[in-house]
Amino acid sequence: MSMTRVQNFSLSLDGFATGEGLRLEEPFGHAGHRLHEWMVATRAGGEMFGREGGTRGVDDAFVRLFDVGVGAEIMGAGKFGPPGWQDDPAWRGWWGPNPPFHTPVFVLTHRPRASVEMEGGTTFHFVDRPPAEALDLAREAADGHDVRIGGGPTTVRAFLAAGLVDHLHAVVVPIVLGRGVRLWDGLEGLEQQYDVEAVTSPGGVVHLTFSRAA
Amino acid sequence: MSMTRVQNFSLSLDGFATGEGLRLEEPFGHAGHRLHEWMVATRAGGEMFGREGGTRGVDDAFVRLFDVGVGAEIMGAGKFGPPGWQDDPAWRGWWGPNPPFHTPVFVLTHRPRASVEMEGGTTFHFVDRPPAEALDLAREAADGHDVRIGGGPTTVRAFLAAGLVDHLHAVVVPIVLGRGVRLWDGLEGLEQQYDVEAVTSPGGVVHLTFSRAA
Repeated sequence: MSMTRVQNFSLSLDGFATGEGLRLEEPFGHAGHRLHEWMVATRAGGEMFGREGGTRGVDDAFVRLFDVGVGAEIMGAGKFGPPGWQDDPAWRGWWGPNPPFHTPVFVLTHRPRASVEMEGGTTFHFVDRPPAEALDLAREAADGHDVRIGGGPTTVRAFLAAGLVDHLHAVVVPIVLGRGVRLWDGLEGLEQQYDVEAVTSPGGVVHLTFSRAA
Repeated sequence: MSMTRVQNFSLSLDGFATGEGLRLEEPFGHAGHRLHEWMVATRAGGEMFGREGGTRGVDDAFVRLFDVGVGAEIMGAGKFGPPGWQDDPAWRGWWGPNPPFHTPVFVLTHRPRASVEMEGGTTFHFVDRPPAEALDLAREAADGHDVRIGGGPTTVRAFLAAGLVDHLHAVVVPIVLGRGVRLWDGLEGLEQQYDVEAVTSPGGVVHLTFSRAA
């Protein structure tokens, strides 16, 4: 059955999934690359940047699951571009002409625009819908495959709060970020709906999986 | 050399080390026992409650380090008793006639009272001192042994912020507590002063050790 999944969602020890001061030059604000270094160090992560080598263990396994079985993504406006991207009609995301999604991507925004077809199978659709309705659209587009909730934290939190996430893979990076946007706020007791596993990696992070309890 | 240590300090995923609504019947408020079940499940934890059996793995190893090499503890007023204990001259802590410390314990309070000698080697001293001065007192009392910063979160945070902690053992319990008192607030970049390790246990928690970088 088709699932709604969050994959490789990195957090600091204090629960921040992005820093403060997001802008074009710093997509994660003062967090810089620190939340995602573990990912870049893997072989799969390296391939994304055209680099050979990298680790092949548990970090790599999780990174590789990013697109396995996924037929559509939903992301928040804050992930699609820096603050103010809505005023730039030419903005097509951070990811260049061939984004790493290769599926329909539904961008949640209060200012929808025409869909944009990119190279490699990614099409950005812009929709002003609440989580459950956006998920219906994405499920239809995913054609029996899973839907990934891609972030940022505000969007993931909204889908978790609405009980719409079947599988959450969060990665705790042992740094204290201090400021930014937190994932866990307003989700008291979330673990009660899930089977939770935690495993550390030699890369120094903690992989948490929340799987919807049967 | 004598160290300042935090041992077995439990946190929720969202960073709360205690819940909301602390009172005599609920020392950790709405968190109940959830932050400390991992500890009670160990053999060492069981012994504290006069129960036989329990796990003997990594959780137990950490629990057993609680008093190894420790010559004094410092705790905040919020750990010593429920809100208002200062108005009760007969209050002698939560722990009965023979508290589990067996050393001098310095209770930080703006309303000091006379020291209280308990059974088993614990003496409570009540001092109105900032962290560094309280630590000087405790170090002298510890006579070459380590000083444990016993909590609660506000006190541990104050000692961390002042750069006075050599070793922090924090235990992340995979629950979302939602409210209470957080440990990590105001500690941005803390990890830069420490070597950090994370290890998960079959008991389902994550042991984090922050050891002062050489």
